[in-house]
Amino acid sequence: MALNVTQKLIQSHLLSGEMKPGEEIGLIIDQTLTQDATGTLVMLELEAMGIERAQTEASAQYVDHNIIQVDSKNPDDHLFLESATRRFGMYYSQAGNGVSHPVHMQRLAKPGKTLLGSDSHTCANGCMGMLAMGAGGIDVAMAIAGEPLYVKMPKVWGIELTGKLPDWVGAKDVILELLRRYDVKGAVGTVIEYYGDGLKYLDAMDRHVIANMGAELGATTSVFPADSEIKRFLKTQKRENDWSEIVADKDATYDINEKIDLSTLEPLIAKPSSPGNVVPVSEVAGEPIYQSYIGSSANPGYNDFAIVAEIVKGKSIAKGVSFDINPSSRQILTDLINEGHITSLLTAGGRLHQAGCNGCIGMGQAPASGRNSLRTTPRNFPGRSGTREDSVFLCGPETAAASVLTGEITDPRTLKMKYPTVSEPKKPTIDIDLLDAPLPLEEAKMVSLYKSKNITSIPEMQPLPDELDVPILLHLGDNVSTDEILAGGARVLPFRSNLQEISKFSFEILDKDYYNRSLALLEDGGHSIVGGFNYGQGSSREHAALAPRFLGLRAVLVKDFARIHWQNLVNFGILPVTFSNPDDFDKLSEGDVLSFKNLRESLRNDIAISAKVEAKGLDIPCVHVMSNRQVDIMLAGGLINWVRERTKA
Amino acid sequence: MALNVTQKLIQSHLLSGEMKPGEEIGLIIDQTLTQDATGTLVMLELEAMGIERAQTEASAQYVDHNIIQVDSKNPDDHLFLESATRRFGMYYSQAGNGVSHPVHMQRLAKPGKTLLGSDSHTCANGCMGMLAMGAGGIDVAMAIAGEPLYVKMPKVWGIELTGKLPDWVGAKDVILELLRRYDVKGAVGTVIEYYGDGLKYLDAMDRHVIANMGAELGATTSVFPADSEIKRFLKTQKRENDWSEIVADKDATYDINEKIDLSTLEPLIAKPSSPGNVVPVSEVAGEPIYQSYIGSSANPGYNDFAIVAEIVKGKSIAKGVSFDINPSSRQILTDLINEGHITSLLTAGGRLHQAGCNGCIGMGQAPASGRNSLRTTPRNFPGRSGTREDSVFLCGPETAAASVLTGEITDPRTLKMKYPTVSEPKKPTIDIDLLDAPLPLEEAKMVSLYKSKNITSIPEMQPLPDELDVPILLHLGDNVSTDEILAGGARVLPFRSNLQEISKFSFEILDKDYYNRSLALLEDGGHSIVGGFNYGQGSSREHAALAPRFLGLRAVLVKDFARIHWQNLVNFGILPVTFSNPDDFDKLSEGDVLSFKNLRESLRNDIAISAKVEAKGLDIPCVHVMSNRQVDIMLAGGLINWVRERTKA
Repeated sequence: MALNVTQKLIQSHLLSGEMKPGEEIGLIIDQTLTQDATGTLVMLELEAMGIERAQTEASAQYVDHNIIQVDSKNPDDHLFLESATRRFGMYYSQAGNGVSHPVHMQRLAKPGKTLLGSDSHTCANGCMGMLAMGAGGIDVAMAIAGEPLYVKMPKVWGIELTGKLPDWVGAKDVILELLRRYDVKGAVGTVIEYYGDGLKYLDAMDRHVIANMGAELGATTSVFPADSEIKRFLKTQKRENDWSEIVADKDATYDINEKIDLSTLEPLIAKPSSPGNVVPVSEVAGEPIYQSYIGSSANPGYNDFAIVAEIVKGKSIAKGVSFDINPSSRQILTDLINEGHITSLLTAGGRLHQAGCNGCIGMGQAPASGRNSLRTTPRNFPGRSGTREDSVFLCGPETAAASVLTGEITDPRTLKMKYPTVSEPKKPTIDIDLLDAPLPLEEAKMVSLYKSKNITSIPEMQPLPDELDVPILLHLGDNVSTDEILAGGARVLPFRSNLQEISKFSFEILDKDYYNRSLALLEDGGHSIVGGFNYGQGSSREHAALAPRFLGLRAVLVKDFARIHWQNLVNFGILPVTFSNPDDFDKLSEGDVLSFKNLRESLRNDIAISAKVEAKGLDIPCVHVMSNRQVDIMLAGGLINWVRERTKA
Repeated sequence: MALNVTQKLIQSHLLSGEMKPGEEIGLIIDQTLTQDATGTLVMLELEAMGIERAQTEASAQYVDHNIIQVDSKNPDDHLFLESATRRFGMYYSQAGNGVSHPVHMQRLAKPGKTLLGSDSHTCANGCMGMLAMGAGGIDVAMAIAGEPLYVKMPKVWGIELTGKLPDWVGAKDVILELLRRYDVKGAVGTVIEYYGDGLKYLDAMDRHVIANMGAELGATTSVFPADSEIKRFLKTQKRENDWSEIVADKDATYDINEKIDLSTLEPLIAKPSSPGNVVPVSEVAGEPIYQSYIGSSANPGYNDFAIVAEIVKGKSIAKGVSFDINPSSRQILTDLINEGHITSLLTAGGRLHQAGCNGCIGMGQAPASGRNSLRTTPRNFPGRSGTREDSVFLCGPETAAASVLTGEITDPRTLKMKYPTVSEPKKPTIDIDLLDAPLPLEEAKMVSLYKSKNITSIPEMQPLPDELDVPILLHLGDNVSTDEILAGGARVLPFRSNLQEISKFSFEILDKDYYNRSLALLEDGGHSIVGGFNYGQGSSREHAALAPRFLGLRAVLVKDFARIHWQNLVNFGILPVTFSNPDDFDKLSEGDVLSFKNLRESLRNDIAISAKVEAKGLDIPCVHVMSNRQVDIMLAGGLINWVRERTKA
């Protein structure tokens, strides 16, 4: 059977299941990527699992998010991450090396491999002929521990690229065009695979741009073939031996089909405040701007900066505009310096920042309130810039450069100049130690984890008992979000590595007393929560399961669950059950004690379970939809215990 | 009479008083410098004073402190500052241009002029043959309004420099040597004037280093002659016409005399946590370091970075050490890039940050807790780095470079290499618009101040009434500090431009209810405070007077005052009086109503005043020590009103 690239990547890593869209498949994971915002919890999970050493071919920890150090929390976290990567035999990329995605691409990405990362833009490395996917922290911890990833087999959405991009139109406009056509949920449940003649005009970093923002389309990931261009790219990085050709079979087919004629595209821009809000730049031209911002994993390449430098060279930016230059990696910054481009940017009026994610995830460079900010970043959700009343537009480097010169949104085609040609340096500065290599096993074993007082280990969790008698501590309505269960933001997230501290914020938006009331019940077996429809919607934050679990939450009985939070409840050993009869919801109230009897046998043998309320004489039938694997996890008390048992065995 | 440089500078600006140490003198101020942390209040004061246009020869506003933008407060402040400088006819240096002191030196500093700045390191420009002094915000606002500065005539401390610095010893070691000899209060009440043959080996930027940290010795300022080296420096900046020779007369004398033979110095280091805690580097060599940090106004020059680059070139820094590069200005960064030095720093493992004050004032790059941080910055007070339990050492660039290579504090003389020679580029990149020039008057008049919701004007303040009847709201003990009156730090200072909001923090450490209790009395004429000895010690923060004044504080009766806070009380129209008989303190208690009668006439005619407490039948004699000028200010309701009246007249 003729296979496309996606199918080849999946087939060569298939451990269980069938390649039929919608079926659960188990995939072997070759590489992992963690960043510092999510990485500390991953490392604490590895510690709790009792992992001796990463089982992957390569696992890398990048410090690129929390690199503003206004107190000791972030630098202390970095030291913890450094010690953990040494302990577990991983690569470590310290602050200053740059954004995980381009650095991984330069140093470790390998055609034909699978990559799982605790960052939603992990898909960027799909440009290298890899199956590169973002996931929650514990999924990545599992992969590091050698466990497969279980996902539903996606549909493959083949997009044929033809023609060549016109002058002043770049790779960013290709993905903006897809967002214009399909909006932010347009690719849910699919892998987007690019092919066709048009590919020969898109270099590896162009493809990175396109693959990266597949995340904004909701795709599982995006995939490009590993063709001669990828060979060329690896050769410049002195890694040509890592190349192998992976292209679609001649008669390969796709579940969905689409075409883009690159020659017909024009400069596009996503208006506030959604990446799907795309229009031609010409439609909003003339809007005054406060800021023009270049960099991020959505435009990380040497050429993305060089083209801007060539456009502004010898000119001055408009007075009063903030022109923020965010290098994506130490290597790219050094190359740009050596070729004179940073001087062009600085003398035009640019403000050069450290290499990293920076303002793209709200770490600095927040715009003034209500002023327009133009960015080459992937997301413009409200407030993501750090400014509550922000007005962020997403565009390509050409539009950012043209607009910073005029002080207003400007279609770059209206500049009175020839389109500059730029090309990557033939000899990039790859002699730099971007990554600390894993320690040999015997040396790694001697390393102890460095923990400041803000970093605490994940406490031991008990297996599911055979009988639960758990008072209902909260009786909640429909659509409770994970932000209500455990808020994000600068007030809460600095405690992401400190379960004791972060758990104090659990449910505080809904009930300021939840924390104290839960502690009072902790010794007596914990508590339960009852809710309505769509329980746990929103952010995939795993702390929203872990923190209440730490406070004794053992069972959640609702009308139905949002998917990811349901999975997180399973992963942390909290019994997730739904009402067989949703009307039973109204029979329950705060303080009722839910009793589940004979739980272990019932789950193991697929016997129906029910929640009794003796005081009210109720017996409420419940449903769970856990797979056999997930029942095992639940019985063990969560994924951490389950893995630890397997590791011992 | 033969004059030294200090006397020449003072004599040519003397408006009132005599040049006898200890006498109050009034000085004409030619130039001012404000930075963004203190500048917003200065601009609000100018607005409240009704100033039409800066009366100085040059006033410049720099944005270099609050350049971490995690929400809209800082960028909104920048827009306000930009609009205010346009309105008042000042220079504006936007974020990205760099630290005020080196940028001012490059663009505006002029031999023979006086400079007043709302930054304690304003003295750095004493290197240019200027009288450059730091002061509180309202003093600078007064200078911008054309008012003289009143200070006590300092003693002049002549320091003769002889010989030449050995290899591996730099300008930083000269000022560290003085701190080793005299500690942090060693130069209080003096101007330090450097002279002698040794000067010919210290270039303009070396002198900047030495002048800058005169602040740490407690000096009023430091002064260097404007000699041929300053001419050379100005020539490289294409400003040779701004040069005029200012050297001490041949037979000039000094109030205090001191010598340093430069050839005898060795690399020095200030241990935690005081700049006066100086020992030879060799004494602490071998201590492991977490961080090596270069930059700041204490080592801002091209050569300060170039020497480090030459030392680490082609080598790799020690694993795990954070090597933080903080360019001091856009111009210096560009020059360092063009000469290849930034590439040397990056490839060795450096982490390049934006140009600005950065970690020197706790804005980023905080070290991990308890780990040693080596910095070329001027201060290492506990917690200033942002990390509560910090351990910061101060040293020169050579020591910072040697130590980052070994990972431990290292005497640079022990490196196995020749001392590199570096020299400034012959053609620095001065074609950059570092400063926006003042608008012409008519254009400036049209500019309205841009105020986000976090910036509010200073409210109208009433003149001192003839009779005050003010209940004692707080009856406090000895040594109340301005930190207790109004705290600093990241929780409070973001509201520095919003009197309504910042006033809520007044006295909250001593009495959580002060704010509400003061508001209750506001309509009825306000309140008073009674205290013990040394009232208002600590930080010079003028908000500690302004905020309580805004809440209705009209009189403070104490045993005695700390000097600067006393001055701030006068400036904001709060009557500062002391007990003639300190034992009267015990007769008073919270709630007693202090009545001051016939106040205006008494103050105007130097008639003794007293505070009556009718309910207790008390009549407590009081003393004030305000000068006639200050009495006028008090009667007007504070400096803002006083200036406004004069401007009208």
